[in-house]
Amino acid sequence: MSTTTYSVQGMTCGGCAAKVTGVVKQVDGVEDTSVDLAAGTVTVVGPGADHDAVRAAITQLGYQVA
Amino acid sequence: MSTTTYSVQGMTCGGCAAKVTGVVKQVDGVEDTSVDLAAGTVTVVGPGADHDAVRAAITQLGYQVA
Repeated sequence: MSTTTYSVQGMTCGGCAAKVTGVVKQVDGVEDTSVDLAAGTVTVVGPGADHDAVRAAITQLGYQVA
Repeated sequence: MSTTTYSVQGMTCGGCAAKVTGVVKQVDGVEDTSVDLAAGTVTVVGPGADHDAVRAAITQLGYQVA
């Protein structure tokens, strides 16, 4: 299993987390994703995930990917 | 003074409100804007505000404009 964890700034509530997981799950190659609000991280599962697209999708929602 | 109020779904915390006001304030003709989280509304001040652009900016952040 291949997982990638991103540090993402600006996710402050469950609604933020839901929006982020909603868009990330639609990215090519993403099999699963989860948000850790306390840690400020987004974890993506999928060996073939398009990571540029993941970053773009998160950024478009107004969050900053470190 | 010209104000327009939009019903917006999905804003659930202060972080959401800050992101919405941040993008709406950048729209042409918008002089001021505020979010009422409890009511689920975004109010825009500005007689020359580009309302299509306001809706697009909010939607792009992942919120639904009624």
